[in-house]
Amino acid sequence: MNFFQKLESAQKENRSLLCVGLDPDPARIPQGLGIFDFNRAIIEATSDLVCAYKPNLAFYEALGDEGQDALKRTLEHIPSRIPVIADGKRGDIGNTSRAYARAFLDNLGFDAITVNPYLGFDSVEPFLEYRDKGIFILCRTSNPGSADFQSLRCHYGRGYRPLFEIVAQKASQWNTRGNVGLVIGATYPEELRLIRESHPEMTILIPGIGAQGGDLGLAVRYGLNPRGSGIILNSSRQVIYASSGKDFATAARKAASSLRDQINQHLAR
Amino acid sequence: MNFFQKLESAQKENRSLLCVGLDPDPARIPQGLGIFDFNRAIIEATSDLVCAYKPNLAFYEALGDEGQDALKRTLEHIPSRIPVIADGKRGDIGNTSRAYARAFLDNLGFDAITVNPYLGFDSVEPFLEYRDKGIFILCRTSNPGSADFQSLRCHYGRGYRPLFEIVAQKASQWNTRGNVGLVIGATYPEELRLIRESHPEMTILIPGIGAQGGDLGLAVRYGLNPRGSGIILNSSRQVIYASSGKDFATAARKAASSLRDQINQHLAR
Repeated sequence: MNFFQKLESAQKENRSLLCVGLDPDPARIPQGLGIFDFNRAIIEATSDLVCAYKPNLAFYEALGDEGQDALKRTLEHIPSRIPVIADGKRGDIGNTSRAYARAFLDNLGFDAITVNPYLGFDSVEPFLEYRDKGIFILCRTSNPGSADFQSLRCHYGRGYRPLFEIVAQKASQWNTRGNVGLVIGATYPEELRLIRESHPEMTILIPGIGAQGGDLGLAVRYGLNPRGSGIILNSSRQVIYASSGKDFATAARKAASSLRDQINQHLAR
Repeated sequence: MNFFQKLESAQKENRSLLCVGLDPDPARIPQGLGIFDFNRAIIEATSDLVCAYKPNLAFYEALGDEGQDALKRTLEHIPSRIPVIADGKRGDIGNTSRAYARAFLDNLGFDAITVNPYLGFDSVEPFLEYRDKGIFILCRTSNPGSADFQSLRCHYGRGYRPLFEIVAQKASQWNTRGNVGLVIGATYPEELRLIRESHPEMTILIPGIGAQGGDLGLAVRYGLNPRGSGIILNSSRQVIYASSGKDFATAARKAASSLRDQINQHLAR
């Protein structure tokens, strides 16, 4: 079973397009609780409500050995039917990207990874060779600065198009094994609509709902493919930090459940 | 002492613009030798010949706990007068880049880091806040695929310019604390020349000599600033894998010494 099949299966089983970002910040988790214990409680409270989990590697790297240990134990604790995306935004020259792919897709066993396209094809190719994994290429990111370069109008083919559209076009050409997806922030619904129109077949990972302020309704409306699927909506802080008290897991469950239901209501429209 | 002062001091002391990349690959290091022992031997054999070391984080991540442990011990073993660059090509939304900066610049104590600019200003800013560190922004990378996006002609100001030139321009604008450098591959000497002409003040980290085939003479000629400095020439494989036998450290010293001398001969021209 490849990544996209596993994803679809989890989406159906849990009736959910919601991905929860596991981004542990010691300043925001209840005092005295270890990172893994925090993640475990969040996972146990939400694993019937999500289609994927997405640990952002930065938060584990920032915690040194404790972080690495927590990441490994977290991966072991996630039910095997739920796919897990390594949000690392990696990308380097060929032999180095190969080492990153080994680190996350082989050794840690992630089902998918996010990749930064700035270095071009040979930096992405070592990831693409993992045909059963999902490779999500950054297209238009959710942050305010994403316009600095991603929106520049560039000469391509016979005309001028924004860089993120060219990235989507290339990603689509590179998708010869059917394992490529895109990352587009919910904070840029018009850009999401444009890319979906040109690429009806690609799965889009959509961060930026919740704490970052993206409009959930527009993300669903513009992100869905013609078959009414093909999106993963990620929320991190809005779910995992729904409460900073002892009830954090219950509060996370409530937040995840509410988000899933809101998404499903938008789907039904 | 900030990063660029430390760099200049090491360059003077060792009369060297050579940076050695510490990219351990278990398949290429002598059998039975641990990663740290390999690095230690390389460092002891070359620390009077280099101006910096540059561990590429991918190679340590690919080795799991052993890699993390080796990285930490390697950092402790590098003489404190030699600056160390974390080659991680990281970059994410603001709160996440902050976590990466903490991981490498605070916790591991690297003197500098390489950063991918695709996400724009707010993804780079958390690194820039470390005024005593060096922040090397990827401009034109050394790999063949770098043309895919970095060479696209984009609308900027009153005309059209290649993306990598716009990145250099932005990096220069962001350099309000004097801690920003650029990465440009020796494999693209014309691009290096162009950027140096427009940015006489910025330090350029130049990978791609050696195994990647960049021309050393052109890299020196086109990369130098008007004061005859401002470059760091990196070689990884050509130095550390100069021999795969028991004499690897002696061979690495010979390769590093020869490269340093070649660079200095080009300087004298």
